[in-house]
Amino acid sequence: MRKILIIGSGKSTSYLLKYLLDKSISENLFITVGDLNINQAKTLIGNHEYAKAIKLDVFDDTSRSQAIKDADIIISMLPAHLHIEVAKDCITYKKHMVTASYVSPEMQALHDDAVANNLILMNEIGVDPGIDHMSAMQVLDRIRDKGGKVILFESFTGGLVAPVSDNNLWNYKFTWNPRNVVLAGQGGAAKFLQEGTYKYIPYHRLFRRTEFLEIDNYGRFEVYANRDSLKYQSVYGLDNVKTLYRGTMRRVGFSRAWNIFVTLGMTDDSYTIDDSENMSYRDFTNSFLPYSHSDSVELKLRHQLKIDQDDIVWDKLIELDIFNPNKPVGLKKATPAQILQKILMDSWTLSSNDKDMIVMYHKFGYELNGKKYQIDANMVVIGETQTYTAMAKTVGLPVAMATMAILNNKITTPGVQIPITKEVYQPILKDLKTFGITFQEKEIPYLGYNPLNN
Amino acid sequence: MRKILIIGSGKSTSYLLKYLLDKSISENLFITVGDLNINQAKTLIGNHEYAKAIKLDVFDDTSRSQAIKDADIIISMLPAHLHIEVAKDCITYKKHMVTASYVSPEMQALHDDAVANNLILMNEIGVDPGIDHMSAMQVLDRIRDKGGKVILFESFTGGLVAPVSDNNLWNYKFTWNPRNVVLAGQGGAAKFLQEGTYKYIPYHRLFRRTEFLEIDNYGRFEVYANRDSLKYQSVYGLDNVKTLYRGTMRRVGFSRAWNIFVTLGMTDDSYTIDDSENMSYRDFTNSFLPYSHSDSVELKLRHQLKIDQDDIVWDKLIELDIFNPNKPVGLKKATPAQILQKILMDSWTLSSNDKDMIVMYHKFGYELNGKKYQIDANMVVIGETQTYTAMAKTVGLPVAMATMAILNNKITTPGVQIPITKEVYQPILKDLKTFGITFQEKEIPYLGYNPLNN
Repeated sequence: MRKILIIGSGKSTSYLLKYLLDKSISENLFITVGDLNINQAKTLIGNHEYAKAIKLDVFDDTSRSQAIKDADIIISMLPAHLHIEVAKDCITYKKHMVTASYVSPEMQALHDDAVANNLILMNEIGVDPGIDHMSAMQVLDRIRDKGGKVILFESFTGGLVAPVSDNNLWNYKFTWNPRNVVLAGQGGAAKFLQEGTYKYIPYHRLFRRTEFLEIDNYGRFEVYANRDSLKYQSVYGLDNVKTLYRGTMRRVGFSRAWNIFVTLGMTDDSYTIDDSENMSYRDFTNSFLPYSHSDSVELKLRHQLKIDQDDIVWDKLIELDIFNPNKPVGLKKATPAQILQKILMDSWTLSSNDKDMIVMYHKFGYELNGKKYQIDANMVVIGETQTYTAMAKTVGLPVAMATMAILNNKITTPGVQIPITKEVYQPILKDLKTFGITFQEKEIPYLGYNPLNN
Repeated sequence: MRKILIIGSGKSTSYLLKYLLDKSISENLFITVGDLNINQAKTLIGNHEYAKAIKLDVFDDTSRSQAIKDADIIISMLPAHLHIEVAKDCITYKKHMVTASYVSPEMQALHDDAVANNLILMNEIGVDPGIDHMSAMQVLDRIRDKGGKVILFESFTGGLVAPVSDNNLWNYKFTWNPRNVVLAGQGGAAKFLQEGTYKYIPYHRLFRRTEFLEIDNYGRFEVYANRDSLKYQSVYGLDNVKTLYRGTMRRVGFSRAWNIFVTLGMTDDSYTIDDSENMSYRDFTNSFLPYSHSDSVELKLRHQLKIDQDDIVWDKLIELDIFNPNKPVGLKKATPAQILQKILMDSWTLSSNDKDMIVMYHKFGYELNGKKYQIDANMVVIGETQTYTAMAKTVGLPVAMATMAILNNKITTPGVQIPITKEVYQPILKDLKTFGITFQEKEIPYLGYNPLNN
């Protein structure tokens, strides 16, 4: 039997494991799931014959390396910063490895060793990064194969609540790590290319410089820029592109309301508030507003941010209960961002029957024989349950498929890889289609950047 | 003769040196000015009998320690981060030392050594820090000496252009390090105390949360909060104060216009713009605005920042010529802050006959016998020439006076000091008065925080 070791059984393991278990007989597989906490793995495995859960502490060198030695291929679903010890063991014991995480400099440093040992260390093969790489490269390669010159590429992804469970004013719930949502966009100005010019947006303006996208049957979305839209410029072969823009998708109106938190300073994670433990939600809000012995916190906030009394953003704030004097923050020496996260988790945590949604949207502009063309492509994936989420599906399935493709010698190029070559994306995108993960493509007149101006 | 060594002959040395030279005969002084570039020192000294300029490289241990060994007391007017080597030599060769800079952790670490050797390392005795410490402590001590309990302390300082030279729309010119002006307020949220509550202002809101102050004969000023108003809370004995607020003074309207640069992201010093060298001022401005093939940079800026066509802030932007397509930035790989600084220096550099101004304003609120009182105190110092500036006067004179007070055993407490004790501030404030550096004090009804609300 061919032995697969999955290290880490977090939120994304459900589909990953199901895919592999479903193929265990036909493909002659035995799957071991290692985690510090093996309860979720045990539930997912049930009494399946060709799988087992083992307790695995990634910091314990002996048991980790033994488990890796015993397997034919390793999937690491650990948090990104924990992959590297696994990867080093994979080099030592000559095992292939698959992760859904961004390639760290430490991981990249293993490239030559991996090539020398004819090993594949496949990364960024989940969703954003992952499916976005593959679906973009497929269209970009097709355009270039027929002699086209790419002049525009824009790519947007969002993890959202599914329409059926979309029942708050923000049209948003936490479907992934809430902390990342609170800190989104921080750490420097967003940089991108528009019609040949570099553009910069400071964090405090990021959520006011949004644009709209439409997806058939799903309506309108808005996007704000990622910090570094140029990260994959060379990797995608887009060094001469005029417009390159990557961003995050939200439902329309989210960003304008979120900008209130940014403006007040509530998303700041760089300092702690001394007496946070004993603050109420109202005290927290008030700490970002001037003192007044006569005006209410509500009026001060409205006045400072110039919010009309009938503006929908006001209802969004009320919905989150940020003016409640009786709800305690209850966090010791917390940063504003940590406190805001707690307040949001009261309102934005998925209920047990809520479903999530992954949306992705690409725009490709190109020139061919002196004419300009545009292709728009989008993908929508809706979750089934709280275990079988759209996030778990779009992260876990490509990881599982890449693992099988490596085992079956369909992917053979060694080294530290990301899924941007035909060898990788062709079989995986094809397989994803059978799971309903497909892109709707349409040719539209070339609009260039910002269609409203054309 | 008593030998004084001044290391560094920058902008603040004029009055410092003049004060000491004027006392050289009566006080039996010989003054040596050491600098890498001795031209300015030579000009200031002229053919004075009891002074000389020497070339001194503070990084050359031999010549530095020799110069220090030869003197009785050392004044370091070097940039703050260069004081420490001088201070260590002062311990080694048992010399007193005076600086106008903030006490660094490295300087503070010399306290025990200084005490053990009965040496005074006096710091923060210029202006902000310096005269603000002394003038505040004098009133605070007076209130406490008569049994009052301080409940409010606010303190504001500004380096501005004198009214006679105030001829631009910003009512501002660079009278000190332009880089510090561009970066003012960055590096974290401003924190202060208002009526018993901690308040926080993020950088991008700092210039919209201003307040007004009035000074007789000089009109209205505005203030924005310093990053850490609580820095001297314990040092000033204000642990139980309800309101503690320190800030920077500008002419009214400066902050609202400056906020445009902050909002656009032009004050960011954390990344470089690749092609900055070949940009025009207009290109620079445009890089912070969305692409449009039809709208002008001017219209885009007005629209993004919602500036009415007849708003005075617009004229302020025009005055700075930020839309000029023909003025080249000409700086390689510059940060936005560096480019903005260059643009501002075109307009805000003092002309040869311009005069500067230092303004300071304190508010003291206290309780005595169950009643509340308030004292407001302000100081205005106008520069005489471009050499004998208000800044040089308010920095250099206290340094010179402290040096003499130490030499004459009027200040005797050893250790790393700042001027907050009667021993220090009484003689120096008295001496400053003879140079026209005085505070106008008035008792007013206690207004507490934000008089408009009372």
